[in-house]
Amino acid sequence: MDGTAVILTAGLYNSNAGKTAHGLVRGTERYDILGVIDSKDIGKDAGIILDGQHRGIPIFASLEAFVKETSQRPDYAIIGIASSGGKIPEEMYPVLKLALSEGISLVSGLHEFLSEMPDFIALAEKHGAQLIDVRKPKHRKDLHFWTGEIKQVSCPKIAVMGVDCAVGKRTTARFLTEAARRAGLTAEMIYTGQTGWLQGNRYGFILDSTVNDFVSGELEHAIVSCYKEQSPDMIFVEGQAALRNPSGPCGAEFLVSGQADGVVLQAIPARKQFKGWGHLGFDIPPIAKEIALIEMFESPVIAVTINSKDMSRDETMAIKQEYEAELGIPVLAPLYEGLDSLIPLIQGLK
Amino acid sequence: MDGTAVILTAGLYNSNAGKTAHGLVRGTERYDILGVIDSKDIGKDAGIILDGQHRGIPIFASLEAFVKETSQRPDYAIIGIASSGGKIPEEMYPVLKLALSEGISLVSGLHEFLSEMPDFIALAEKHGAQLIDVRKPKHRKDLHFWTGEIKQVSCPKIAVMGVDCAVGKRTTARFLTEAARRAGLTAEMIYTGQTGWLQGNRYGFILDSTVNDFVSGELEHAIVSCYKEQSPDMIFVEGQAALRNPSGPCGAEFLVSGQADGVVLQAIPARKQFKGWGHLGFDIPPIAKEIALIEMFESPVIAVTINSKDMSRDETMAIKQEYEAELGIPVLAPLYEGLDSLIPLIQGLK
Repeated sequence: MDGTAVILTAGLYNSNAGKTAHGLVRGTERYDILGVIDSKDIGKDAGIILDGQHRGIPIFASLEAFVKETSQRPDYAIIGIASSGGKIPEEMYPVLKLALSEGISLVSGLHEFLSEMPDFIALAEKHGAQLIDVRKPKHRKDLHFWTGEIKQVSCPKIAVMGVDCAVGKRTTARFLTEAARRAGLTAEMIYTGQTGWLQGNRYGFILDSTVNDFVSGELEHAIVSCYKEQSPDMIFVEGQAALRNPSGPCGAEFLVSGQADGVVLQAIPARKQFKGWGHLGFDIPPIAKEIALIEMFESPVIAVTINSKDMSRDETMAIKQEYEAELGIPVLAPLYEGLDSLIPLIQGLK
Repeated sequence: MDGTAVILTAGLYNSNAGKTAHGLVRGTERYDILGVIDSKDIGKDAGIILDGQHRGIPIFASLEAFVKETSQRPDYAIIGIASSGGKIPEEMYPVLKLALSEGISLVSGLHEFLSEMPDFIALAEKHGAQLIDVRKPKHRKDLHFWTGEIKQVSCPKIAVMGVDCAVGKRTTARFLTEAARRAGLTAEMIYTGQTGWLQGNRYGFILDSTVNDFVSGELEHAIVSCYKEQSPDMIFVEGQAALRNPSGPCGAEFLVSGQADGVVLQAIPARKQFKGWGHLGFDIPPIAKEIALIEMFESPVIAVTINSKDMSRDETMAIKQEYEAELGIPVLAPLYEGLDSLIPLIQGLK
């Protein structure tokens, strides 16, 4: 564990933009999360706001209020929101500067780097705080090309893919890892985004900030290192975006370079169009077509998981039955049913 | 045009590793190519060695021999080979240093950057020469996210894709652009690799050295800029790798982010396995399966082009007939038949 932390969400905790914060509230082994700083839902529990589960993480109105009420100074303040274009939001500058002046290190997964902004550099140096840009690309000499060594990994490797961005791939990968561990198995999750790193996963890389030529090699290196060092019973790879997302298609890497033995595909039935691109007429393809596309890459889709956003429990269960009848594979609603029933299926894959 | 140039190939001109040199010998509007420096085939014409066509580009034994025999000093010396891992080959250091000490600027498309190597920096400064690393990533502030503006491009956009790396996608894209121009049309080729830039194409980006999150946006930006500034009758996009190449699958970008109206698919019938990965059992999928995969992304494959490497003319023509009967679309051997017959087909696409 790196230390204690608060999450900064600038009024956006209870919105899609708060995805990074949501991942941290769901659970992280990297930080001890002491609170969320937001202008809404003050005094409530961040877990309750997220999904109705109490997690002992209160929401505070400001960093000052946090310090006053808890008499604690966190080691880190983590930017918990995604912003348009990946910029550090200007309205966050005051709280970021206040944190630095208290010696609190900043952690950001945004595209704009705190460690390249002179004001922040100066303040961090003055107060002995760190500026940690999770998405800062590695130097070329630390990057790996694909070698084919992935062929030597003999445990099942499952890619968790999705029909769109922001459908819960990372959460499903985490649930699967936890389910395997509950079943007495050793399992590891390979992170491919900044939140996966923030949550404390040990193996992975940040796909979208990697120079394209090294994406497949970094993926292979993460899986192979995990396999050699941990000998896990199974490995879950967090997917990114979707094979046909127009703003950045992604997925073939997990299938051919990562040699996925099976795919768990996350669906979001209430969403009909690619997030952000509906106005241009980009519909999410039907689930059966997405499965057919994935299987052209030679990895079978072993189950579909349902993100039940904007659906009642009854609606979710009705869709589950409809999909199961159409697709002939297990379909699960993770929030209602968990994913434990998939683990024996995955054990049988190799 | 940037100036005169010689190409350095260190004994590898007549091999697959000489791909960059081959592209420059085929034609470039960026440089006036005066010669190739290689240890083999000295005195012969580089075009004859490549494909039997004389191009007035002699091969010289050394840079000294070039200067002595032609009484010319080129503006640029271009590294014309691909190397393992993208390193500047150490055996090239002497000729590179000699060039710099004569005030000749160096151009490299390799992953290792001359402009980060102290010896070369010092020599370049001393003699007023430049170090041009074509593949050096752009700064983040100069990169574009995908916006959907591609939807406003109303001329046909053709992606030239291939069944593997190094099958001739760039050459076919160039042939198509030239064929369109011969037909009295305005056409532009969007480059996506360093050789396409070296050849003088005005719009494009280097896909493999671009941070992954910006690949789709840089592609869109290149196509949209080309369309707005040149109003071409048609646009050809140079593809990269192959959809199922295990060491780095690529292609969905051209189809969904680049909104290709059609695909020309380059086949290499004599090659049965992915280049470099046959020992691991990675077979190139049958051509009909590759077409089926591409068409799941909603872009029709309008023609197949054949790389006739390791096949006689008769063998090539037999395969052409076989493919045509199987696939029901035009199949052409560009080196024997040209590609002029495809232009009316492409004009009819929009």
